[in-house]
Amino acid sequence: MVGGGQLARMTHEAGIPLGIRFKLLSDTPQDSAAQVVSDVVIGDYRDLDVLRAFAQGCDVVTFDHEHVPAEHLRALEADGVVIRPGVEALLHAQDKGVMRKRLSEAGVPCPRHRIVADPEDVARFAAEAGEGDGFPVVLKTVRGGYDGKGVWVVRGVEEAAEPFRAGVPVLAEEMVDFARELAANVVRSPHGQAVAYPVVESIQVDGVCDTVIAPAPGLSEELSGTAQEMALKIAAELGVVGHLAVELFETRDGRLLVNELAMRPHNSGHWTQDGAVTSQFANHVRAVLDLPLGDPRPRAPWTVMTNVLGGDYPDMYGAYLHCMARDPALKIHMYGKDVKPGRKVGHVNTYGDDLADVRERGRHAADYLRGTITE
Amino acid sequence: MVGGGQLARMTHEAGIPLGIRFKLLSDTPQDSAAQVVSDVVIGDYRDLDVLRAFAQGCDVVTFDHEHVPAEHLRALEADGVVIRPGVEALLHAQDKGVMRKRLSEAGVPCPRHRIVADPEDVARFAAEAGEGDGFPVVLKTVRGGYDGKGVWVVRGVEEAAEPFRAGVPVLAEEMVDFARELAANVVRSPHGQAVAYPVVESIQVDGVCDTVIAPAPGLSEELSGTAQEMALKIAAELGVVGHLAVELFETRDGRLLVNELAMRPHNSGHWTQDGAVTSQFANHVRAVLDLPLGDPRPRAPWTVMTNVLGGDYPDMYGAYLHCMARDPALKIHMYGKDVKPGRKVGHVNTYGDDLADVRERGRHAADYLRGTITE
Repeated sequence: MVGGGQLARMTHEAGIPLGIRFKLLSDTPQDSAAQVVSDVVIGDYRDLDVLRAFAQGCDVVTFDHEHVPAEHLRALEADGVVIRPGVEALLHAQDKGVMRKRLSEAGVPCPRHRIVADPEDVARFAAEAGEGDGFPVVLKTVRGGYDGKGVWVVRGVEEAAEPFRAGVPVLAEEMVDFARELAANVVRSPHGQAVAYPVVESIQVDGVCDTVIAPAPGLSEELSGTAQEMALKIAAELGVVGHLAVELFETRDGRLLVNELAMRPHNSGHWTQDGAVTSQFANHVRAVLDLPLGDPRPRAPWTVMTNVLGGDYPDMYGAYLHCMARDPALKIHMYGKDVKPGRKVGHVNTYGDDLADVRERGRHAADYLRGTITE
Repeated sequence: MVGGGQLARMTHEAGIPLGIRFKLLSDTPQDSAAQVVSDVVIGDYRDLDVLRAFAQGCDVVTFDHEHVPAEHLRALEADGVVIRPGVEALLHAQDKGVMRKRLSEAGVPCPRHRIVADPEDVARFAAEAGEGDGFPVVLKTVRGGYDGKGVWVVRGVEEAAEPFRAGVPVLAEEMVDFARELAANVVRSPHGQAVAYPVVESIQVDGVCDTVIAPAPGLSEELSGTAQEMALKIAAELGVVGHLAVELFETRDGRLLVNELAMRPHNSGHWTQDGAVTSQFANHVRAVLDLPLGDPRPRAPWTVMTNVLGGDYPDMYGAYLHCMARDPALKIHMYGKDVKPGRKVGHVNTYGDDLADVRERGRHAADYLRGTITE
């Protein structure tokens, strides 16, 4: 796996019972995954020679992030390295412009969008909505964004200059009037076998995922089925191998629009570690190795994942003891990262029959670990 | 953790979400745990200098087996190394003579037993039963036995010479007329907090654990409570820290007698990985680090663990694919060991509402992986 973040850490954890020999390419020995994996190569994933040396002796190469340059992936594939998901699929997770074009052509509902050239072009895009000046509009750099970075909500042409400064193409999208955000997680193998997890509700705070509720409360069977079908269709259409997260807007008038794609284990699937028969990490490993996929069904009526962000206190140990003692059924997942304010340093999973209680337990633990509450 | 076997492998796996920095002392880099742990020291646990160097920088030292010489453990404790469980507790898992004496003094029911000097003394021990010649009798070397090794069932004085050849003291025990074998697993922290898992039935084949059923079918609440109380009492009495497995005989007349003790994660607790809120491995880690313990409650009405032994075919890959495809809910735990006939190379966990079905799924997978069935 290329990338030493928490996704690689948890993928390794899930590979241990499968008997997998996991090899990691990590920036530093202190990275989240590098702390726990035996076979670690330290190197820069932007360096093709490093990637080539790393891929030697790997049966399959997969990724914990989308940042490996596409030309390097193409070079590796030309060398005969097995990359899963392959570069032609991965492009759609790396470049939002490519993704929007391809999904629209395939008839998958997306927000209105187009690549814009400059702030004046943003104004024209906005005006095409046909109501008033059409602002606000969402601008995104097509590459490199995550957790709200690389995304701007622009209320007029005078705010539209900033996104163009990075020198990366900019995508304009309508600001969707959504009721909530959902995620449809599916896993697909090279054989074409696929499994779909229950559709979840994802609650963002300041552009960062805060809470995921599985299954999405009150979602009709019809809309749930539609979301799963969309994700399975996208996975097949794009030739995805491994885990695919499809982030969706549920609009106030009951439509589903695709927001983002991720072709790797994803924050919206962390609940599966304790809430599903087979976790997204285990199924990602099974898929990229072309093993038969595991059962994606839930193990509890409700499972809630709450992200733990770093707070002002670097030492979480006391809070950690408190949370374990207060709630012996709390499932804590720490990433081994230094605490910095706002940084994702872990998550907690809670599950049970009573959604309000399950949410409250997760909320309390995450807030206590962050230090925003002390009792 | 000292010892690179599968117990260390699975303890590391359970420590990853807890954010633990796990350091391993392993005989070889090929050992089961050494394959998956980042921080591995290769060395001989029988060498005090190796142990001393390893213990440097560990907050706590714990064990995946009972074979570290007691005098080395004492030396480490004298150095100020924190060892959990401590040597005074661990002695009772290392030496069956010490264990029997201590448990009997504490009023814990055990089979009739005493240390015997030679085959003639075995005959005298047998005759003390007061019925016929008193054979068969069970002989055990007090140290070094596991999985049926170091244990003999002797039907007459002429068979009683073999156990004395190792030069280790020999313990004679009555051959218990048991209905079945049970195990009571508990975890105790230095604070004295303790949790008890549901009592399980353990089915042995040729002296090796084959199947564990959680909870033990048909066990009365009263007997289950008695077994848990016995295990908690032993843990407290002996000052155990970490996981304690108490293997029990359930006699045909409804009594419970202690067979063996293990002070580490134990095969009779592997079902907890998929069948309990907190696994024995996670709770062992929490206990030895004096973290609050996790909820030991079961997650399914029935969970069955079936051991996978090596068969005649070293390459299990085809069977592995078959089992995953046949039963997507099968939980496979492989140890990364070379396949040798009769060697424990993994286990499978199955769970559900219907015990017969849950057992059959585990049985089929284990037999198929071993190669004793092909459909």
